[in-house]
This record gives sequence, C-alpha cells and structure tokens, in this order.
Amino acid sequence: MREVRLGLAGFGTIGTGVVKLLEGLGPALARRLGFRLKLAQVADVDLNRDRGVAVPRELFTTDAFALVSDPQIDVVIELIGGCNVARRLVLAALRAGKSVVTANKALLAVHGQEIFRSAEENKLDVGFEASVGGGIPIVRTLRQGLSGDRVRAVYGIVNGTSNYILTQMSEQEAEFEPVLRRAQAEGLAEADPSFDVDGIDAAHKLTLLIQLAFGVYVPFEQIPTEGIRHVTPLDIRFARELGYVIKLLAIAKLHGREVEARVHPTMVPRKHVLADVKGAYNGITVDGEALGQTFYYGLGAGMMPTATAVLADVIEVARNRVYGSSGATPPLGYPIGEQKRARLRPLERCESEFYLRLHAVDRPGVLGQIASILGRRQISIAAVTQHGNGEGGVVPVVMRTHRALERNLRLALREIARLRVIRKPVGVIRIEESLGGAS
Amino acid sequence: MREVRLGLAGFGTIGTGVVKLLEGLGPALARRLGFRLKLAQVADVDLNRDRGVAVPRELFTTDAFALVSDPQIDVVIELIGGCNVARRLVLAALRAGKSVVTANKALLAVHGQEIFRSAEENKLDVGFEASVGGGIPIVRTLRQGLSGDRVRAVYGIVNGTSNYILTQMSEQEAEFEPVLRRAQAEGLAEADPSFDVDGIDAAHKLTLLIQLAFGVYVPFEQIPTEGIRHVTPLDIRFARELGYVIKLLAIAKLHGREVEARVHPTMVPRKHVLADVKGAYNGITVDGEALGQTFYYGLGAGMMPTATAVLADVIEVARNRVYGSSGATPPLGYPIGEQKRARLRPLERCESEFYLRLHAVDRPGVLGQIASILGRRQISIAAVTQHGNGEGGVVPVVMRTHRALERNLRLALREIARLRVIRKPVGVIRIEESLGGAS
Repeated sequence: MREVRLGLAGFGTIGTGVVKLLEGLGPALARRLGFRLKLAQVADVDLNRDRGVAVPRELFTTDAFALVSDPQIDVVIELIGGCNVARRLVLAALRAGKSVVTANKALLAVHGQEIFRSAEENKLDVGFEASVGGGIPIVRTLRQGLSGDRVRAVYGIVNGTSNYILTQMSEQEAEFEPVLRRAQAEGLAEADPSFDVDGIDAAHKLTLLIQLAFGVYVPFEQIPTEGIRHVTPLDIRFARELGYVIKLLAIAKLHGREVEARVHPTMVPRKHVLADVKGAYNGITVDGEALGQTFYYGLGAGMMPTATAVLADVIEVARNRVYGSSGATPPLGYPIGEQKRARLRPLERCESEFYLRLHAVDRPGVLGQIASILGRRQISIAAVTQHGNGEGGVVPVVMRTHRALERNLRLALREIARLRVIRKPVGVIRIEESLGGAS
Repeated sequence: MREVRLGLAGFGTIGTGVVKLLEGLGPALARRLGFRLKLAQVADVDLNRDRGVAVPRELFTTDAFALVSDPQIDVVIELIGGCNVARRLVLAALRAGKSVVTANKALLAVHGQEIFRSAEENKLDVGFEASVGGGIPIVRTLRQGLSGDRVRAVYGIVNGTSNYILTQMSEQEAEFEPVLRRAQAEGLAEADPSFDVDGIDAAHKLTLLIQLAFGVYVPFEQIPTEGIRHVTPLDIRFARELGYVIKLLAIAKLHGREVEARVHPTMVPRKHVLADVKGAYNGITVDGEALGQTFYYGLGAGMMPTATAVLADVIEVARNRVYGSSGATPPLGYPIGEQKRARLRPLERCESEFYLRLHAVDRPGVLGQIASILGRRQISIAAVTQHGNGEGGVVPVVMRTHRALERNLRLALREIARLRVIRKPVGVIRIEESLGGAS
C-alpha cells in the first residue's frame, strides 16, 4: 500500500493530538483512503517530555528544517506557532515540493499572501482548516461548500477564551478581571491574555474569513479591533433586559467594492443562534445571497478538536498528492492573482445600533439634554431606562439607539462627555440588529 | 478558456435556480476557477413554461437521455426526481463517462449502492450535497471536513416541512390537521404530505448520513420511522413545561458493529441548539469522538438554497474533470468495497427517556397502579404531573421516565392499556437526553 510521509514540526499540544489520532485511526483510515499516512519525522526543541504517545526515538529531530531537506517527506505539518521560523519553514517546504498543513492563523494573517502565492507557483496545497474555528470545518465550507453562492456577510465568535470569559461574567455577574484570573489559573487563558481578550486573535481569523468568503484581502492590522476588557457586569445585565447577549464578534460585510470589517464586543439579539454560543465554543454565521444564513458551531480550540482539523487537511492534501491533483484547488479556493485588495470602509462610516451606558446626575431635564444632543446628530433613541428617583444622586442611564452612523455617534459622545451632569466615561457597545432575531 | 459542459436534466424549481445562479455568478466563477461552466443542454418534458430565465431554445430537448449520448457533455445534473428514470439516467451517464450531480435523496437512499459502485468503477464523481440539508454543506462536512475524526452519532432535523408544521403547532397551540392544511395552501407542504410528515424523507436522508458518518450501510426501509401526525398541542405544552421542544429527529448512533437508527418525534432539551431550529430550517448535530458536538444549520429546502448546493457540487466535479482527479474522492469518502453492512439494533433494544401522556380517571391509587406496572419493567419515573382534584373525572397524567429499554416500555404500556382507569391510548414520545443540555 502506498504511503504518504508526514513531517511534523512542533510536538506540542496540537501535535500530540495529531499523533494520537494517527495512532487511533491509522488502519481504518488506510482502508478508507487506499494509502497509508506515515509519520516519518517529528521536530521539536523539547524531545524528552513525555507526551503519552509512542513515537520511535529515531523519528525525532530538533531541526525543523531537516523535514524540508528530507526528500522522503511529502507533507509538512507546521505546528510551531509564531511568525518567524514558521514562515521560513512553510516557504522552504513549498519550495522543496512539499504540501503544507498549518494551524497558524497569526502566520497566515500576516504572511498568507506570500505563502498562498508560493503554494500556487509550486502547484501545492496549503491546508489551514485548524486556523479558524478549531474543529469546525469552516475553511472548507467557505472554500468549497458555499462556492455556489455569493457570500455577503460573516459573523463569527471565533475566540474561545474571550467567549468563555464573557459567558462566566454573565453567569456569575462577575467583573472581567477576577474571571480572567480564574481562567488563567485553570489554563483557559494565557499568562499574557492580550491576543485573546483584546481581539487580536479574532482579527487574525477575520482576515482569513474575509479572503475565503469575499475573495478580497484586508490587511489584518487595518481591521478596527476592540477587546472585551471594558465590558462590565452592568452592561451584561442591561443587555439581557434589552433582549441581547454580549459576544466578542468578528464581523465582515461586503458592500460592492468596499468591505466592512471589525472586531468588538457586540450585542447579539438573544433569539439569534450566535447568542447561544457559550463557554469555549465557537460559532460562525455566514450570510449568502441565495442561501441566506447558515451557521456552524463547535469547539474552537483544544488538543483533540484542533487535531481533527489538522488531520482532515492532511488527508485531503495527501489524497491530492496520490492522485496528482495538488494545487487544483488553491488554498483560498481561487487563484491569488484574482484576489482584490478591497477598500476597507472606515469605521466612521459604518452603521449599527448602539447601546449607551451613561452615569448621570439624577435630575429633571438631564435626559432631555442628552436626547437633544443625539437628535442633532441624527441619532434617534429606541429605548431608555433610568433607575433613579430624581433626587440628585448619580444613576446609570441606559439607551438603545436606532441605526446610526459611527461618526455621528462619536461627535455626539464628545458633546455628552462635556455635560456637567455626566460623571463617568460613557460605555458604548455596538448592537448587531442586522443579524435578525429568528435565525 | 477551457469549458466544462453541463447537461441539466429536469428544469423544475431547483433546475431553474441552478440556471439563475450560473447566469449571475458565471463570469466571476470562471475567474475563480480558471475554466467556464457552460450550460450545454436542458432536458424537460415541459419546455414552454416561462421560468424567468433566459435559456436559448436550441439547448432544449425533451429527451433526458440525449444528454447522455451527447459526447460534448461532461457533467449531467439530475434533477428529475423519482427513482425509475432518474436511476437509468444516472447509471447511463456514468457508463458514458460523465460525472453526475443530483439532489435526489430518494434515488440515493434506494439505489445509492449501485450508483456509487458504478461511479467508482468508472472513476467518476457523484455529487449529492443537495440531497441532505438543502444548502447546508453537510455531505461535504461528513465526507471531508470531519474525516479526521470518528463520528459516533448524528442527530438531524432534516425535513423542513414537518419542522415547519411542528413550529406552527407550537406557536399557535394548534392541532396537526389544520396546520397541515394551511401549509398545503401556502405551498409549504405537498398535496400528499406523507413523505414529509410520516418521516420517510427524513429516513431517506438518514440512510445517507449513516453511510457518510459511519461508513456502514443500513437499508432505508429497515429504519424504524414514525411521523408527526400523532403529536398534539397538549404534548407540545407538556414538553415545554418539562424543558423540551418536540422535533422530528433523525437519529443514528454507532455501537461497535451495531447501528442504532430511527426517525420519530423527539423531545429535545430546550437548551440544546437543535431546539432552536424553527420553521423550514434544518439543523444537524454531529458527535465526534475527538471533536465532540458540532452543529450545522440553514435552509434545508427551497429553490435557491438547494441550487447553491447543486452548483457547489458542479464546481467540484468540474474541477476534478479539468485536473484529471475525478473519482479520487469516492462519493461517500471511501471505497464502496470498504462499506460494511451494519447490523441494525432492533428498536426493542434501543434506550431513551420517555414522555407518557395518559388519560386516566382521577381517583386515588391510579398513579400507584401505573407506577408499579412501570416499576416491574425496570422503568423508573423521573417526574409526574397530574392536573386533577381526585373527583373522578378523566384527567391527563404526564410522566417523564428515566432511561429505559424500548422493549420494557412496550410491555408496560400493554399492561397499562388494560387498566380500567385508562381512557385513551397512551401518548408516547421519546426524549433524547443524550444530546445534553448545554451544546
């Protein structure tokens, strides 16, 4: 039986999961595929740690580039992480005629263009299913499953850590900081949580989703990104009263030649399926012109879920190798030369509904002052709640606006902040009513 | 630019949708793919009806088999429906060296083995994404996306008509019959609704899902199938009180060499995502050993949603043709020779929780009689509600049992039916607690 030989670079959590799956599914897979997936070499800096899987010592190397120079190896699995070595390794593997599978969203968000172009020039595959949504096959879905439609919007809860924190904050009515610290203690958040809680990881993934869904490129660093540190239990409670759940949402919409893209805490209508994505789960809604909304849900991280996505890619890439069809489907589903650099719609010109939390002196006329500032900026108020009794204390005032221009809101907020009756910075969270309530 | 020539057999609703998509996406698709999809011939018995799409008269034929004999045609799209002509057409197309795309679940449920084998022998593709879940790419997901895992269970709401009826019954607290009649008047249910409301269509789809998910074959006609005609508004209300929503669920679980498969109204925990699948939507939960539960959701029927799935298949099949990799991935993801004929677990040996609705004379001791019959059959009661006052009228008694063997339940019900205090047939609906509440 023919063999496809795999070189694994990075024997950490996900790598161990991949080896476990190959051990467990190996013989059954070989019968399904008609060829065998053989782990031929494993590169890592630490080769002594016990990972609970049996890999013969002679497969080990500390030099990831040994996988590239070994002519016996057909496919390189890059699970090193980071951008520097990983980039050189992936490009070297492609130049050496090896297809690549990677779970590295940061790498692809930053160097994807170069890597995808190299794959195309060398008629090879780059599989990156594991880089977005963990085990949820969303990359394949956008690349092939929905290829018969024109996607007009994508909404994703694609960072499990921040979703876990928001869920905990919601269930325990707790502040961000203690919940983060507990998540760190439980190993569910990194020591430096910035990538997750500041939305950077979600923006990495969003730039990949945009390329897959719309066929256009938006540099990740241009995507307006706002994390969840400023979300308070009070916001979560008011959101619930208004019929919303707060999620860190990665949003992309296509408007002709312009793309709207942003990552920020978002109030999602409680009846929408995205509102039910809890804990470390991920969920992605894709809105197609002909198909309407479809939704994809599952574990977006973790050793075994992510490993299944890596293995699914290995299977596809290996199959293409055996059948001589490597590169037939480009990594993004279309030739990189067909990709357009889209104009990113400035956040100022984006529209949504807004939730505003103001802390104002509880005095007659205050609401009128705020409302008239908003009104002058074409922002109309859909609902207000104020929990005071007119006796002069500072009370929270919560407003939900109708659809308004971000620019107008900012101008209004600047004026509101100058009012003497306003006692704290105004809390602002965008509402995504365009998701609709029912699906 | 190279062309792949398509022959469309069946110019009905879905066929019209496919032509619309080809018209709308054509040029953009050609740039993405590097080749052109060309509608070369259209066969239908009625060629005069105005379908609102511009197809040149000279492409028309009334003879579907003309597509097969035309050596210019590369891919045949079978949208005739039914089993007889469709089967002959698909087999003839494969023998003539043409790959096939079909939306015909009844055909594949009954003649799939023969068709898949023929595709394999002729090294050709059969795409059938549109046959399950409409526009949701669930076939691809099971065939490729989840190929890196071992699937252990599938739960699907895969019939939009019955889900629409159950949703309406629930929202309007209405009986089955009037809701069905209204759905028929609105064109949402067929004049003969049996395929949909008796679970036959769902069983067709389940046999395909089982083949894709587990690599085994269960003849569709062996799958225990129960429709929704007996569900009452009372059941829906009691379900809600108990924390469930009633759905027509297609269920398959792998137990070693045995497969559990069944289609019936099922109480789904309200917190599970499947409970939120409303109206004509479809939703499928897949439970993987390594991945856990993933969920896929969208419109399971309708002209345009289904057409997008057909087109996605056409794209893949055409791409394989251009790159010479037709048949590289078998229709089911594995060679038909590797498919095992599984033993179907008899329904008698299946386990679940049960909901029982009894109409009993409201008299002291009645509950005790029923409970002791159940107890003798190892069925323990998790909850009981009885709305009477002990004054001798007939009142509904609702029970939820713990996990029990179907066989034991039937024996107990036979005894209960003989009690003089029982005044109507006992209503029984299975509960699927194994879904879990949280995801």
